[in-house]
Amino acid sequence: MKVRTPSGTRDMRSVWWEGGRLCLIEQRLLPRTLKVVRLSTVEKAAKAIEDMAVRGAPAIGAAAAYGLALAKPGKLGEAAERLARTRPTARDLFRAIEYVKAAVKGGASPLDAADEYVETVVEACKRIGENGADLIDNGYKILTHCNAGALATVDYGTALAPMRVAKSRKKRFFVFADETRPRLQGAALTAWELVNEGIDHAVIADNAAGFFMANGEIDLVITGADRITRNGDAANKIGTYEKAVLAHENSIPFYIAAPMTTFDLSLECGDEIPIEERSEDEVLELGGKRVAAKGARARNPGFDVTPERYVSGYITEFGILKARDIAKLG
Amino acid sequence: MKVRTPSGTRDMRSVWWEGGRLCLIEQRLLPRTLKVVRLSTVEKAAKAIEDMAVRGAPAIGAAAAYGLALAKPGKLGEAAERLARTRPTARDLFRAIEYVKAAVKGGASPLDAADEYVETVVEACKRIGENGADLIDNGYKILTHCNAGALATVDYGTALAPMRVAKSRKKRFFVFADETRPRLQGAALTAWELVNEGIDHAVIADNAAGFFMANGEIDLVITGADRITRNGDAANKIGTYEKAVLAHENSIPFYIAAPMTTFDLSLECGDEIPIEERSEDEVLELGGKRVAAKGARARNPGFDVTPERYVSGYITEFGILKARDIAKLG
Repeated sequence: MKVRTPSGTRDMRSVWWEGGRLCLIEQRLLPRTLKVVRLSTVEKAAKAIEDMAVRGAPAIGAAAAYGLALAKPGKLGEAAERLARTRPTARDLFRAIEYVKAAVKGGASPLDAADEYVETVVEACKRIGENGADLIDNGYKILTHCNAGALATVDYGTALAPMRVAKSRKKRFFVFADETRPRLQGAALTAWELVNEGIDHAVIADNAAGFFMANGEIDLVITGADRITRNGDAANKIGTYEKAVLAHENSIPFYIAAPMTTFDLSLECGDEIPIEERSEDEVLELGGKRVAAKGARARNPGFDVTPERYVSGYITEFGILKARDIAKLG
Repeated sequence: MKVRTPSGTRDMRSVWWEGGRLCLIEQRLLPRTLKVVRLSTVEKAAKAIEDMAVRGAPAIGAAAAYGLALAKPGKLGEAAERLARTRPTARDLFRAIEYVKAAVKGGASPLDAADEYVETVVEACKRIGENGADLIDNGYKILTHCNAGALATVDYGTALAPMRVAKSRKKRFFVFADETRPRLQGAALTAWELVNEGIDHAVIADNAAGFFMANGEIDLVITGADRITRNGDAANKIGTYEKAVLAHENSIPFYIAAPMTTFDLSLECGDEIPIEERSEDEVLELGGKRVAAKGARARNPGFDVTPERYVSGYITEFGILKARDIAKLG
């Protein structure tokens, strides 16, 4: 991804391996500060995933893969267990761990296996961009939710990848980015990526997406996903379900962009996906300062499930699939 | 309304007249600080409405009515024009101004007319509470959006009035309060009222309402309104339309609670309601601190329109109406 810095534009990934360490952009400090953290232990990698220094299903998978490459000799199983305990919803986390363990069993080094896993993800995202760009016509206004950009996926992004490719193909379009409370990944991360890429956009309160849909100002919705089941149900950042229902009600195509690592063919439908409930403080506080009354309580589910009936299609590295195609994948 | 203070529980209104001045709770400082501002000029009253020190359609109407009572002799028309220019969407503002002007024409003093207008609103809200409480069964979980409590309406509230009455009738129920970005009236104001009243609740990100609806955790939705047209379309705080569509999709009753002062029988349908678009900074900043990237842009409509087909009924001082009943009101 392009990153504009005071000293010029750089090309960066959000997660990579360098000098024997797992490196990642500390996403909680964006957009204010671009800081790279370099982690040398499995525990530090696990904490970075748990505390959301790195987030986004494919990026979590990549961080876990390199996290395994930090395991001490003979401790790969223990490292895998620790990394698997970090976050429950994203499929990619478990897929990455399984991939590296299987490759090591087959004789590969953990680092080679992690590298291979990550390159596969990056290549998949690039192809998602190419496949999805065809959906974007000149003059389109596109809504996205949360951040499913390069930050969330090592590079290119999932939902944002088609927009990057459409931009490179000189298409004219406009992006509405839901700010995505409670953690504001849309305002803080997606807007940062869009500014870096020079894509016209507006951040909106999550509440405003329906207004723009009903007023005919949104032509297409693309989001990412954290886990997609055999029938096409998709868990993604809380609020995605709301946008899918609103798109359906307003006859606006709603697409999910995700690589194969996000599909979980072991689950029949979305009811089986574990949903993470996070701290009340993410809702009751803003930037560490309490906004709700003393004594007020909160609920804070981190994800919701969008039933397949609201999804127009799944933009993958193998093309744009329909729900009925998913079960055929494995 | 009950207000818990360090020196005990007080009974307060959000807008009142005292010592020749318009008094109001400075809502932008809640829940942290309970401050009463006392205004002695029309211009100050207009500013308080414009800058949202007082907000909520019926409370805006009350502030405007008392604002007219601050007009210098012979300057009532000028004062009315200034106050009418403050905010475009809420019907109550214009209704209050018309009411006071007509009463003065009929020989009343502006203050007597304002007092009469405000008492009518307070009485209407009390009756909305009594009429709406019948909708709340034991064990219900109720969603509300923004703040349509006593703060928004001088006393009792509109959407919250049925909950206050249900509580006094010893019903057991639970309230989900949308935090209501961008200005967080749900987290800051509704939660404050619910804590004061001792009502069990959880503040949720606006994104999470759909999750709880789809999981069968919401039995009833009640919101307020800023303007309701002849056919039943209702303008209310941005995000209300989203909740109405989601309630409809999940077969959950969706009610709007509003006094007659909010109905605008001069408009046929919601397309005719002017929608205020507010500053980009409300979205790009949080508590005065920028959260979006440098160069990021925003859109910020303050209200949306919920078409009547999503509304189960209108809780008014005259009972619970259907959309077809509205045109018969005048």
